Amino acid sequence: MSRRNQIDAAVRGEIAAGNGLLNRRVLLSGGLFAAGAAGIAQAQSSESVGVNAPTWMKTPGRDFSGYGFPAKSQDKVQREYPTGQVRPTTSSHTPLHLLEGTITPNGLHFERHHNGVPDIDPNRHELAIHGLVARPLAFSLDALMRYPMETHIRFIECSGNSGGYTSAQPTQTTAGGINGLLSCSEWTGVRLSTLLAETGIAPGAKWVIAEGADAAAMSRSVPLEKCLDDAVIALYQNGEAIRPEQGYPMRLLLPGFEGNMSVKWLRRLKVTDAPADTRDETSHYTELMPGGKARQFMFPHEVKSAIIRPSLGMTMKAPGFYEISGLAWSGAGRISKVEVTADGGKTWAQAALGDPVLPKALTRFRLAWQWSGQAAVLASRATDQTGATQPTRAAWLAQYAPRQGYHFNGIQSWGVEPDGTVKNVYI
Amino acid sequence: MSRRNQIDAAVRGEIAAGNGLLNRRVLLSGGLFAAGAAGIAQAQSSESVGVNAPTWMKTPGRDFSGYGFPAKSQDKVQREYPTGQVRPTTSSHTPLHLLEGTITPNGLHFERHHNGVPDIDPNRHELAIHGLVARPLAFSLDALMRYPMETHIRFIECSGNSGGYTSAQPTQTTAGGINGLLSCSEWTGVRLSTLLAETGIAPGAKWVIAEGADAAAMSRSVPLEKCLDDAVIALYQNGEAIRPEQGYPMRLLLPGFEGNMSVKWLRRLKVTDAPADTRDETSHYTELMPGGKARQFMFPHEVKSAIIRPSLGMTMKAPGFYEISGLAWSGAGRISKVEVTADGGKTWAQAALGDPVLPKALTRFRLAWQWSGQAAVLASRATDQTGATQPTRAAWLAQYAPRQGYHFNGIQSWGVEPDGTVKNVYI
Repeated sequence: MSRRNQIDAAVRGEIAAGNGLLNRRVLLSGGLFAAGAAGIAQAQSSESVGVNAPTWMKTPGRDFSGYGFPAKSQDKVQREYPTGQVRPTTSSHTPLHLLEGTITPNGLHFERHHNGVPDIDPNRHELAIHGLVARPLAFSLDALMRYPMETHIRFIECSGNSGGYTSAQPTQTTAGGINGLLSCSEWTGVRLSTLLAETGIAPGAKWVIAEGADAAAMSRSVPLEKCLDDAVIALYQNGEAIRPEQGYPMRLLLPGFEGNMSVKWLRRLKVTDAPADTRDETSHYTELMPGGKARQFMFPHEVKSAIIRPSLGMTMKAPGFYEISGLAWSGAGRISKVEVTADGGKTWAQAALGDPVLPKALTRFRLAWQWSGQAAVLASRATDQTGATQPTRAAWLAQYAPRQGYHFNGIQSWGVEPDGTVKNVYI
Repeated sequence: MSRRNQIDAAVRGEIAAGNGLLNRRVLLSGGLFAAGAAGIAQAQSSESVGVNAPTWMKTPGRDFSGYGFPAKSQDKVQREYPTGQVRPTTSSHTPLHLLEGTITPNGLHFERHHNGVPDIDPNRHELAIHGLVARPLAFSLDALMRYPMETHIRFIECSGNSGGYTSAQPTQTTAGGINGLLSCSEWTGVRLSTLLAETGIAPGAKWVIAEGADAAAMSRSVPLEKCLDDAVIALYQNGEAIRPEQGYPMRLLLPGFEGNMSVKWLRRLKVTDAPADTRDETSHYTELMPGGKARQFMFPHEVKSAIIRPSLGMTMKAPGFYEISGLAWSGAGRISKVEVTADGGKTWAQAALGDPVLPKALTRFRLAWQWSGQAAVLASRATDQTGATQPTRAAWLAQYAPRQGYHFNGIQSWGVEPDGTVKNVYI
């Protein structure tokens, strides 16, 4: 049996779903790409490969640096602006399609400002906790540093993320353009419940109004229950002091809740008996329902996923094996399952999930695919630990008034063309 | 009972070990700091705190940026050079004492070069696998991108890390100065076993010689068994393309093995029947034994830990509550236990470990401490999943000839002085 026939036989035995989706173990059995794939050549003889050194081996390299930067050839890996904008007006996106894994490097965490990034003197910044408390207190950064801390990997997603999916026609945007108001970091800080134990809570307390020290004084109302659960005053992001765009010197982190509530540059928490109905929880960040009423305070992100590779902007150079890779997440906890289709939803195969699967963090999923060279429609569908599964785009839209674009979590899809290009399609 | 008496009673009931080590739950019960600690003031009245806005709330903030940087006030958070050097000659250290959590931001990952950082054109770089293989192959970066990938958080440690602990007198260096040849990232890449399945392995193959594309052609011999286990060709570091100082566009990653073997700028893997005895596994990275023989090929890092907060350079401003926080790791897998002493080793209490505890990754440990204001000697002792525990410094030294400084994993300690300063001491 020829090598090509061996490969075909191996593939036939490992079909997971229609249009070429394979069980992962077929790739681990090896020898599937090497038969002539682009970019794989016979190596030179053992003598030649040692002697024919590239130019960069012939001169000493660059010296040490105090704080390093990405390679020069990566200079196009930048945060992106929404389509049609020459400069961002409200947000910049994480370029998810240029990244891999689950952690977002700090320089590429998405940005959403309401009046720019304040230049805060950390020695003069204080966090005040006041209102319905027994002992109103103001904490310096030094004081917070003495408290017990905790460290968790958590995603932050803007509630407007993927809002483009509500447009009548699919927008031809990259994976980062569609879903890049989404980032994931290792956050370290002091649990808010520890500080509320210091101030005490007065009778009647039900809400906490969080305010940032930016020029918009961006404010949101947070249920006291969340503040006593897993809310954190975050001081560190991926090991180092939190970045200015993410709230230096401190931000509120409400795991799984819409990103806008994780108030950056946090300066005060006022404990109250009722929500404040601030501008950003009335004119924005609400859900417009059929009939014209707006639904308020839909805080946790529902289960969601997106295929990141392949996606728009990438070109499949030849038929053959590819890995389909994407991200899944849920504000309710852990992802339990991600299914992938290559035939527009007729059949689905289960993807492998990264290990460990962490709650309220991005989970990378992966699946082997033998692309036949014909048109294909790829989509992913995630299920979380509560059993909730992503709805179709149509089912999601049917819940709301036409202009409502917050909290989209419907199934997303990509069309692969016979020429190997990828475009955004609806299924 | 006065508030101070309530606190004292709570503390007495929660003693975990001598000299003030406490059970973690005492801190979660609250109200322990607020009684007059520095940096905690009574908050202004609810009206005042809203009105008295700091200057940075009075002007619009900075605009969006394509790739972000740390806050200006963090400009001293840089990689550090070994004591006494005005510029690094062989390595720069991660400033562990200025960081928190477990992930190292990419800009601060420790550096160790043998002839500088090469400036590699990723479109011309290839990885050749040759020698005792059935099909010698050369892979472009594009070709590797089609293979199935995997993502794991792993530490990398230089085998010379903490070598200062072998000096006769304790060196007065920061935690990063002592232990900062240690970093931890989320790495994504292609499992080496997948590529070896492509090339096939010829009879008699036992070792793989890995060579970097730097001007030193830094080379190490790796057992084939490790290459078929969890070795990865890493392409991404904390989500983005691997940094130049860490091997752009690709490095070998050998989880748990001494860092020098995770060859950066990887250009070839030659499969052989014997180790190559390269310069960096003969003149360096060996263990000098009593009698003068050098022990070679001691690859996995043994279990190890260090207290990072408090540490030299920090000052305890007043007696009272502090969190002791540090890092533990093992090349053999997961950390199972970290014990901490505050009385120089007479009594030990078990610290809380970060969740989840990942194999061959840094684990953050934390313990509550009521500092009395008297002299104290802090130390940590980690145990890994194999049951191995750190030896004392004296027991570690007794194994080797006097000048041997690689692979130190003895117990480390800090002395806290009555004036609140911290210095390096031996116990």
